[in-house]
Amino acid sequence: MQNFKFIDGTVTSPLGFTAQGVCASIKPSNKTKRDLALIYCEKPCAAAAVYTKNLVKSATIQVTKKHLENGIAQAVIVNSGNANTCNADGVEIAEKMCKTASDALSVNPDDVIVASTGVIGQPLPIQPVIKGVEMMKGTLSKEGGTNAAEAIMTTDTVKKEIAMEMTLGGKKVTVGGIAKGSGMIHINMGTMLSFVTTDAAISSQMLEEALREAVEDSYNMVSVDGDTSTNDTLAIMASGLAGNEPVTEKNDDYRVFVEGLTEAFKSLAKKLASDGEGATKLLVCNVSGAKTKKDAVCVSKSIICSSLLKAAMFGADANWGRVLCAIGYSGADVDISKVRVSFKSCKGEILVCENGAGVEFSEEKAKEILLEKEINILVSLGDGDGCAEAYGCDLTYDYVKINGDYRT
Amino acid sequence: MQNFKFIDGTVTSPLGFTAQGVCASIKPSNKTKRDLALIYCEKPCAAAAVYTKNLVKSATIQVTKKHLENGIAQAVIVNSGNANTCNADGVEIAEKMCKTASDALSVNPDDVIVASTGVIGQPLPIQPVIKGVEMMKGTLSKEGGTNAAEAIMTTDTVKKEIAMEMTLGGKKVTVGGIAKGSGMIHINMGTMLSFVTTDAAISSQMLEEALREAVEDSYNMVSVDGDTSTNDTLAIMASGLAGNEPVTEKNDDYRVFVEGLTEAFKSLAKKLASDGEGATKLLVCNVSGAKTKKDAVCVSKSIICSSLLKAAMFGADANWGRVLCAIGYSGADVDISKVRVSFKSCKGEILVCENGAGVEFSEEKAKEILLEKEINILVSLGDGDGCAEAYGCDLTYDYVKINGDYRT
Repeated sequence: MQNFKFIDGTVTSPLGFTAQGVCASIKPSNKTKRDLALIYCEKPCAAAAVYTKNLVKSATIQVTKKHLENGIAQAVIVNSGNANTCNADGVEIAEKMCKTASDALSVNPDDVIVASTGVIGQPLPIQPVIKGVEMMKGTLSKEGGTNAAEAIMTTDTVKKEIAMEMTLGGKKVTVGGIAKGSGMIHINMGTMLSFVTTDAAISSQMLEEALREAVEDSYNMVSVDGDTSTNDTLAIMASGLAGNEPVTEKNDDYRVFVEGLTEAFKSLAKKLASDGEGATKLLVCNVSGAKTKKDAVCVSKSIICSSLLKAAMFGADANWGRVLCAIGYSGADVDISKVRVSFKSCKGEILVCENGAGVEFSEEKAKEILLEKEINILVSLGDGDGCAEAYGCDLTYDYVKINGDYRT
Repeated sequence: MQNFKFIDGTVTSPLGFTAQGVCASIKPSNKTKRDLALIYCEKPCAAAAVYTKNLVKSATIQVTKKHLENGIAQAVIVNSGNANTCNADGVEIAEKMCKTASDALSVNPDDVIVASTGVIGQPLPIQPVIKGVEMMKGTLSKEGGTNAAEAIMTTDTVKKEIAMEMTLGGKKVTVGGIAKGSGMIHINMGTMLSFVTTDAAISSQMLEEALREAVEDSYNMVSVDGDTSTNDTLAIMASGLAGNEPVTEKNDDYRVFVEGLTEAFKSLAKKLASDGEGATKLLVCNVSGAKTKKDAVCVSKSIICSSLLKAAMFGADANWGRVLCAIGYSGADVDISKVRVSFKSCKGEILVCENGAGVEFSEEKAKEILLEKEINILVSLGDGDGCAEAYGCDLTYDYVKINGDYRT
């Protein structure tokens, strides 16, 4: 039985949260797209975050880490259009962003989470931020959550929002979230930005552990282009307003919470993958029968990251040899002679490789299956119980177009 | 002083070698392109080879490994259009190819090196091979080397040949070689196929060691798309006809030979990179000032493999933030605050990043530099003496086009 259900909603669905997003012209040339957002809770929250493992980090990460040392936050300020990375005055600007938000929202500046996304290495001007926050003052609302989701988009073509209900200790608990992805997405905390809220009562420590557990099988299994971003930040805030018995240890409620959170993140991760830069389809690679879970993770990531396979999927070409090739160089302990591969979509499933060798199949049927928008690549290794699922997208002309001249 | 010089020539330039290539219609639809080649030496040669590290391997690799156990070979048979990989009868067919060559050339079947390149997982018919070898019988010549270079091409747009002279113990020694690359090229023995010949007198053991040394800084530093092929084979044969004092230990002559071989391989590796699938330009990433050579290798490969940077180079966009990003996730031990990056081509050099942060530069000048066909990405880490050079290419619409529907 599922302990959770998805509902319509966004980052403001849990009790206590409001948000807003406006066009602050962070990039002077941007006159219409929302590019600055605030998320606010009426009371201080337990809070935690995970960040990119890239050595090159946005100044915002340094500041957010410091602000979350006490496990408490009450607001988020985030901009798109500029990553605030590799800038000499980056930390100073990030602190100023927090101060601007704290003044407008009457919260402690140390309780503000700050994040940025966009071009690396261009100074981030504070003036548009000040102006944008001024515009938002007094306008934060439940409905504003969707504007915040829009404001964090860069080359994303659709906004990514989610909401979910679960029951903890007899009380209804809500989780809400937004995310932005698109390019520079890889499997080490594989998103650029995601902000998640909940009204669950949970200690900062348990919240952080739940976050780390939930990330493993969701955001850490996404790749768009193999490039780990410098700005990845996934932050969560828990208001406690649901009134459940506070989760302070790894009990049954904790398990239910982690399970729900994992599914919420998986859903957002799939949205990121299917809206990867230039992508025309979502690829889900399910690996089973591996010797260990680690081998399964290794194989599924290797397949989802193969440029050749991604290009073949764009062309709806059942080129299973490229799946085998990617298994072969994954580094996993695999007996190739036991490998079985099939492709699946809403149009059916087709077996293309068994015992490590090709089988006869209808190219016509395969084409029909692969022309769909969501493709499952099913790999069975016949060697144990390890399984994993990774998320990616096809490689298209538009990926090249978007990234061939992103800055100008 | 350089101990070698490049000359016009090919795999047949060294004394004793002849070759030929014909259209054998390995793919029934191919009626014009040469797709089968023979390389032959008038006497048995010391021989060695290195192969892909992919767990999935062409059947030809198994057969060639067995045939080279005694360190001796006299001929090569190689086809394009079919990889002979993941086929139930692969080994049997590869042995039949050797037998066909050995009959036509009157050599021992165990002294034949066999290789294939093309689509994975489609049975390779022996009949066209028999017919093709029949066509070549009696026609092998010095001039035929160029036909052999053509016959191993798949999606390559130009053939890759090289020849070089050096002096070993007062005698002129010649090295010749051909290679094919294009897609599915990555840094573990990063080519699909390369056959190198020499008339140097050298023992099988020293030849193998020289091969392994020379590969490190050349073929192992190339990436087109991050996909390690299943068929990579680099084989070398030494006829000994130059009459030099045989190299049987790591003396001065051995050093000269390794140095020359490394440069010959680097030259072929650059040809592979600049003719990578869909590529419009060659990228050479020079890293200096790393703590260790290993760190330098790590950083240079990471940069050359970044899809985002490759797309930016296609668009002639001086997006140095992507260089820093790739340094950051390379896994190397780097102090980002010391990093210096510039772009260089025949149009000049432009500094874009110093002390890990952007510097003002002329976008116009940067564009002019980056519109050239060969771009150097110069990275200085300011932290030691380690240096490395890696080779790659840009990511273009045509890469996607070529790989979106390769099989049909």
